[in-house]
Amino acid sequence: MTSELEAGSWKRTLPTFTDYLWFNTKNRQEFVCITDEVAAIVQKSGVTDGIALVSAMHITSGVYVNDWEDGLIQDFQVWLEKLAPAGLPYKHHQTGEDNADAHLKRTIMGHQVVVPITKGRLDLGPWEQIFYAEFDGRRKKRVIVKVMGT
Amino acid sequence: MTSELEAGSWKRTLPTFTDYLWFNTKNRQEFVCITDEVAAIVQKSGVTDGIALVSAMHITSGVYVNDWEDGLIQDFQVWLEKLAPAGLPYKHHQTGEDNADAHLKRTIMGHQVVVPITKGRLDLGPWEQIFYAEFDGRRKKRVIVKVMGT
Amino acid sequence: MTSELEAGSWKRTLPTFTDYLWFNTKNRQEFVCITDEVAAIVQKSGVTDGIALVSAMHITSGVYVNDWEDGLIQDFQVWLEKLAPAGLPYKHHQTGEDNADAHLKRTIMGHQVVVPITKGRLDLGPWEQIFYAEFDGRRKKRVIVKVMGT
Repeated sequence: MTSELEAGSWKRTLPTFTDYLWFNTKNRQEFVCITDEVAAIVQKSGVTDGIALVSAMHITSGVYVNDWEDGLIQDFQVWLEKLAPAGLPYKHHQTGEDNADAHLKRTIMGHQVVVPITKGRLDLGPWEQIFYAEFDGRRKKRVIVKVMGT
Repeated sequence: MTSELEAGSWKRTLPTFTDYLWFNTKNRQEFVCITDEVAAIVQKSGVTDGIALVSAMHITSGVYVNDWEDGLIQDFQVWLEKLAPAGLPYKHHQTGEDNADAHLKRTIMGHQVVVPITKGRLDLGPWEQIFYAEFDGRRKKRVIVKVMGT
Repeated sequence: MTSELEAGSWKRTLPTFTDYLWFNTKNRQEFVCITDEVAAIVQKSGVTDGIALVSAMHITSGVYVNDWEDGLIQDFQVWLEKLAPAGLPYKHHQTGEDNADAHLKRTIMGHQVVVPITKGRLDLGPWEQIFYAEFDGRRKKRVIVKVMGT
């Protein structure tokens, strides 16, 4: 057996697995818990030890990890409105857009997380939940989930 | 030799390595430099080229990379108090919690970093240091370090 | 063939690939689109499915993903000046430095992104562009690009 054949077989067996989550939120701003959806993709991938990259593919939405508590989610939204208000005379709006604040808000929250996988499961702390944060919704948008490991 | 055996041997030899750092800070808010601890885990892993995911497993602490300079650390803390003050009437506090600001502060700092590994060492710039940022301490909390590579 | 030889051949064939981008901006603050440079490194790596870590190696610059629209870039810069103003009496400046605001600004924007690679290309959404954000330029600084996958 040549090393070339080995390389081929290695390539065949390295588990990288890619899937996409689609969103079309009813409201312009909406936070959606996606922990279960990410866990299902990791299970489908067969990877039992590694990482899952969960990354928004649009620039006015984010992905973050925090608590699944409705009051806190409201606190986040009030806070983001204070730090990055809608309705200011943003230069971006001279292009016809009206969503500059959505770009800024998603920057605060982050647009991606890398989730560790151990023993076949998402290796999350007791209160960690993965969220999709939509800041300019009411249309189809995607999140990529790329799983890598062994 | 069948490809199944090869897959088995590949799985045996792909270095993924997982460890956890524990913290129990004296103060509610405390920043701890963890570069050496992460480097030690990478060395133990045997991985000489790849990445180390360093990620807080609790939702009121963060992990970030920046300068190890006491004045700057104070600047960060003053700044975070301005952007995400404690003591506001957060909705999260209606659950009995008093730490909504800690969730917001850790969001600004980030909750994880991915550190590159090259030639057996953390591939960091001259001033880069890895920090654990505690915003609701005085109890046991964890950071996961997941190493992947070759 | 022993499993040791297999391990050796596996190590030889796992594509991890590392390169560095150098910057020396004319202005103290400058945002530079680096999507093409990252794509070129990924192509050179031969990795067709995996991830590319793109990470600033200096602590007063960042790497982020967002829109390549000049008005929005100006909005980001005005916004960062409001959230993390230059010229305040930062403690960090007692060391002789004058760039504490640059450390804070880069923290808002993030210092690294992990870019998914699928079918030989950066797996980015329609408007996603990768940016280098310099907040204390006019000198040589680096970004590491570490590619991993199959």
